[in-house]
Amino acid sequence: MDFKTAFEKEKRRFEDCLEKCFPPENAKPEVLNKAIRYSMFSGGKRLRPILAIWAYKWAGKTDDDIIPVACALEMIHTYSLIHDDLPAMDNDDLRRGKPTCHKAFNEGIAILTGDALHALAFELLAKTRKIEIVDEVAKAIGINGLVGGQVVDLEVEGKEVNAEMLEYIHRNKTASLICVSLRCGVILAEGTPKELTAITNYGNKMGLAFQIVDDILDIKGSTKELGKTVGSDLHQDKATYPKLFGIEKSEEIARRLIDEAKASLLTDKENKLFYELADFVINRVY
Amino acid sequence: MDFKTAFEKEKRRFEDCLEKCFPPENAKPEVLNKAIRYSMFSGGKRLRPILAIWAYKWAGKTDDDIIPVACALEMIHTYSLIHDDLPAMDNDDLRRGKPTCHKAFNEGIAILTGDALHALAFELLAKTRKIEIVDEVAKAIGINGLVGGQVVDLEVEGKEVNAEMLEYIHRNKTASLICVSLRCGVILAEGTPKELTAITNYGNKMGLAFQIVDDILDIKGSTKELGKTVGSDLHQDKATYPKLFGIEKSEEIARRLIDEAKASLLTDKENKLFYELADFVINRVY
Repeated sequence: MDFKTAFEKEKRRFEDCLEKCFPPENAKPEVLNKAIRYSMFSGGKRLRPILAIWAYKWAGKTDDDIIPVACALEMIHTYSLIHDDLPAMDNDDLRRGKPTCHKAFNEGIAILTGDALHALAFELLAKTRKIEIVDEVAKAIGINGLVGGQVVDLEVEGKEVNAEMLEYIHRNKTASLICVSLRCGVILAEGTPKELTAITNYGNKMGLAFQIVDDILDIKGSTKELGKTVGSDLHQDKATYPKLFGIEKSEEIARRLIDEAKASLLTDKENKLFYELADFVINRVY
Repeated sequence: MDFKTAFEKEKRRFEDCLEKCFPPENAKPEVLNKAIRYSMFSGGKRLRPILAIWAYKWAGKTDDDIIPVACALEMIHTYSLIHDDLPAMDNDDLRRGKPTCHKAFNEGIAILTGDALHALAFELLAKTRKIEIVDEVAKAIGINGLVGGQVVDLEVEGKEVNAEMLEYIHRNKTASLICVSLRCGVILAEGTPKELTAITNYGNKMGLAFQIVDDILDIKGSTKELGKTVGSDLHQDKATYPKLFGIEKSEEIARRLIDEAKASLLTDKENKLFYELADFVINRVY
């Protein structure tokens, strides 16, 4: 099976499970349950949950105990996008080709939909009965993770940024959740410390490359393929790699990170999917 | 020791511990750590953490293992206030006599400060090593709890509400977090099922009474004592007990709930603090 087929198959299997995590649309409070489903099922890549599932298998497990964690990670990713898109933040009207949550509903509902997904994610994580997983995720998405990265990203808008600040933003805003997704897979599978270190290095480097490529695509990609307004980052004067280094140098940095990510994996393990995923990240067009 | 002295003493002890939960104000990202401390140390009553601490003692424990839970509950309460105060929600400029977070900083930072506290709360809860605590809190603050209540509260603004809808809002928006604070104390103390049932009934009734009294105070209290604009609920056409039933009848309902709350406790236990707390709720002026 080629990589894309394997990814799509995992994605469909995951989405069938995700579907069962939410109350029906007509359950009370209706508008909240509608907004949750609207945001969760609007064509996301499902990268983070698939990373968790594959890392779990990579560390030797074959059962479905990782699924609640995978669902939780996608909920957290979605909550962060909903809040990032708000007028007080990036002020985006489109996400994956559809109106953003605050456009389809309203700002109050969008804030609360994010909050509800944030809480529901921890309810799902608790299903693992493994407190370490809760601790890992909470740390990755807080002050020194996802939220911290977004704060600095907001702060530097329109200002000069240097490479160090830019890396701080991308590591926290993007690589942090990608890396913890992989870590959760290995931790839940009770992998070895060596496995955990390897997957962490892979995740940090691949995660950073992922965001650099995202920055590049924002300039090069077409609106149709990306489902958001192309060039919106440059337009808003956001801190991006192409802005600081130019496109060519940014591509070089991303390619080096991808090579290093692949080299982080353990040679005695079945790494095929993670090698291919890394290649996909650098070659993707959406 | 009289009740007020006991409460104040517990509060000071708690605040000393809470202080240690956050990075210093000059830690990166500075603006986030400033906004967190600004919001967390602005004169809150600390009701929820003290409920958790007292329920823990009530169920027979004397150690400090409940403290991280108490801190987490206050963080969640604060995050919910920050988001509720936003222009897209209740649009309040004052909270406890000080500018609300989005007024002191800005809307983007206020949203992210709430999100950071939400995540940090779960990091603290994980310190208990008890997954049940994570599960309890996540459920109490999600779709069928805190967030659900706030969604319906937003939805009914300016509309006719009946007693059932009003009770739904108050139970979810307020009683839910109050009740789970007490439950966490008993669960962490490994109390008996009988103790857990008793404290749950006490919490549900006292929590609902607390919000009804809050509604009444919004009309009767003075701006100085409440630290927020008096009459702001009526002004905004919010769903409140006095609006639906009038002040006198609302006071009667609250008083009945307080009596029932007290009667829920187990007669063979030391209930003094919880009796006095219930009386304080009905008699409070701020």
